[in-house]
Amino acid sequence: MEQHISIVTLGVRSLGISRRFYVDGLGWKPALENKEIIFFQSGGMVFALFLRDKLAEDFRADPTTFGRAAVALAHNVREKNQVDNLMKRAEASGAKILKPGREASWGGYSGYFADPDGFAWEVAWNPQWHIAADGSISVR
Amino acid sequence: MEQHISIVTLGVRSLGISRRFYVDGLGWKPALENKEIIFFQSGGMVFALFLRDKLAEDFRADPTTFGRAAVALAHNVREKNQVDNLMKRAEASGAKILKPGREASWGGYSGYFADPDGFAWEVAWNPQWHIAADGSISVR
Repeated sequence: MEQHISIVTLGVRSLGISRRFYVDGLGWKPALENKEIIFFQSGGMVFALFLRDKLAEDFRADPTTFGRAAVALAHNVREKNQVDNLMKRAEASGAKILKPGREASWGGYSGYFADPDGFAWEVAWNPQWHIAADGSISVR
Repeated sequence: MEQHISIVTLGVRSLGISRRFYVDGLGWKPALENKEIIFFQSGGMVFALFLRDKLAEDFRADPTTFGRAAVALAHNVREKNQVDNLMKRAEASGAKILKPGREASWGGYSGYFADPDGFAWEVAWNPQWHIAADGSISVR
């Protein structure tokens, strides 16, 4: 098995609401979309927003059993001051701030917001991890 | 905002159980680990398994509110027959099969398994999406 996550798919209640947040708010550009799903190219992987009932059907779950996800997505930035800027932009776009930006125990600076479906996103500056020109990030 | 997910973190109950599944079972190689978290390099991003109580603390959630995640991770393979092979390996490593491999409406072949914490992973072969030599995948 190659060590790769190819797609991260979040199950969302409304593509209209998700689109307003991710596309109009954060400025992400869809690569492909229809009435059920929106795909974004994210470096060497794909990020997808899929109607949660359709996602549930896809992996044979009962959507009424969905709860708060024990999952966090992180977006790492190159400069410390970009954390607060992006947190503000997310909040202005409809995100709920879960934890304002602050010095982290691991030596960087980070905060968390929740997207309109409650999914947690960390915005982090980690001076120990290298971010390449193409946005790829490397542990250590 | 650059269009990048830097880290995908799953909140897990036990790193020992997660390690047996992802490392011993699926063969993923940790890049960095301690008693709370295991980091894997996954192409240009990072995959992390973090104790769910610590993750909850990190984004100020109450871990008792965590439920089944409306999230799917996908691992795309290069050849159709690799789907069933990987599903079998995952099952032998302790995964629960959510949906056996089968022809998909979108023209490929895919199945889903749940990892030891119940997180859904799709194993997919999609002849329409290009997988580069380094494992990067492109929409269309």
